[in-house]
Amino acid sequence: MIIGIVGLGLIGGSLGLDFRSQGHRVLGVSRKPETCERAVARGVADEASVSRSLLRQADVVFVCTPLGVMETTVDEILPYLSADAVLTDVGSVKGWVMQAIAPKWANFVGGHPMAGTAESGIEAAQRELFINCAYVLTPVATTPLSAVQRVEELARSLQSHVYICSPDEHDRAVAWISHLPVMVSASLITACVSEADQSVLELAKKLASSGFRDTSRVGGGNPELGVMMAKYNQEALLRSLYAYREQLDRAIDQIEQADWATLDHHLQATQHQRPSFMR
Amino acid sequence: MIIGIVGLGLIGGSLGLDFRSQGHRVLGVSRKPETCERAVARGVADEASVSRSLLRQADVVFVCTPLGVMETTVDEILPYLSADAVLTDVGSVKGWVMQAIAPKWANFVGGHPMAGTAESGIEAAQRELFINCAYVLTPVATTPLSAVQRVEELARSLQSHVYICSPDEHDRAVAWISHLPVMVSASLITACVSEADQSVLELAKKLASSGFRDTSRVGGGNPELGVMMAKYNQEALLRSLYAYREQLDRAIDQIEQADWATLDHHLQATQHQRPSFMR
Repeated sequence: MIIGIVGLGLIGGSLGLDFRSQGHRVLGVSRKPETCERAVARGVADEASVSRSLLRQADVVFVCTPLGVMETTVDEILPYLSADAVLTDVGSVKGWVMQAIAPKWANFVGGHPMAGTAESGIEAAQRELFINCAYVLTPVATTPLSAVQRVEELARSLQSHVYICSPDEHDRAVAWISHLPVMVSASLITACVSEADQSVLELAKKLASSGFRDTSRVGGGNPELGVMMAKYNQEALLRSLYAYREQLDRAIDQIEQADWATLDHHLQATQHQRPSFMR
Repeated sequence: MIIGIVGLGLIGGSLGLDFRSQGHRVLGVSRKPETCERAVARGVADEASVSRSLLRQADVVFVCTPLGVMETTVDEILPYLSADAVLTDVGSVKGWVMQAIAPKWANFVGGHPMAGTAESGIEAAQRELFINCAYVLTPVATTPLSAVQRVEELARSLQSHVYICSPDEHDRAVAWISHLPVMVSASLITACVSEADQSVLELAKKLASSGFRDTSRVGGGNPELGVMMAKYNQEALLRSLYAYREQLDRAIDQIEQADWATLDHHLQATQHQRPSFMR
């Protein structure tokens, strides 16, 4: 198969490495000539170019640019795609993507490979990044089954776990387990640094260990990603945030009322519930 | 030195292993005969007994029982201590401990070795648990300097980083970096499971990965510890929770208003601030 990849960062680059190792021919497109050079040197693509006309030969094209430029990227590449090419993306929000992109190209399949590292860019690309990760596909009523099957087959070839659901189900699910944790975790950091007593704040910084480190990790991550989640998944994220605030208020209330039995019941429940989220 | 340890769980047991390996004589006291047997068999103590009279010979006694029974434990052992014995504890809250225990014994030094594992009990005790961990001491105006120095010397011998501060500073600092994260993290779990649409909840459980895993970890931990933190550090924890709710409300407001510039500024700040909490 000939696979086009537009946007040669961590995700696009890692897809290229895996697809090439399976014997597919990979054509890479990036805005930056130096990224194209690195992509070929690192074995991410057989050929790479700043010219979108390279995609004319592609059977499947993965759009791996950030959500904020995805629509522009798609508009720019569409004139070069062969009529039966399958187009897919890797964006972390699907409702907005399906609304914006699906009307433009019949053979478009929304996708979300849920893999990542703390690093980004072509140098962070790695083989086997997607093994055992979830890979969500979000076809809509108009999406041809053959296009879904083609992307699904490629996703399975990465040894990902493929889930097929509606764009709305995807966005509500990731709001809970990916986007809400970022806001919860970032607010923890902001709250701590709001401590007005400098000696207490300095002591807190010295005493922080694994509990704080883990709870604050995603809140101290890439700000652009956090803003994109909020911007493109605003409705589902707000719904999750309101539910979270309600639960937080209950915990505060239990502590204010010294209702230790209810707090204990609550913490027993969370200890019991958490493992159901661990694959 | 002869060191008494009352309560032979993870912390008491680990202290015993390290002190014995340094050549001190360790006397262990537990309510359970089988724990005493295991303590000697595992090399946690040279001698162990359910009888508190074993502590008569001790120069320093570590009280390693849970906060909920600490006062009773101290009342029970005081009649057996030699007049110049130094008494210390390992409780995770210090204001309440200093109020409850310091008036009972002049040579009492509040302490908090900040180490732990997910396990508990004598079988979880391990050598070198305290290396590079913080060990906080919270003397008050009446605490003899000689007693502080004796405990400090032992804490340093574990290769811990010793910090000396007031009980109030300790409690406010741990509220931020240890107790608040538990409530923040537990509320995340409760909020997620409040999702009424079962297909979305099931999908969320399947898609949850490292971000959710890390942010929810301490909220899915030992419920007893969570309740103890709230009960004995109620005031400082509530203060932290109010500050947290304020920051959460600001994030919600930014997202409601689609104020992406301010949200970006906020997430840039947390990315920048988090490393100051990482030793």
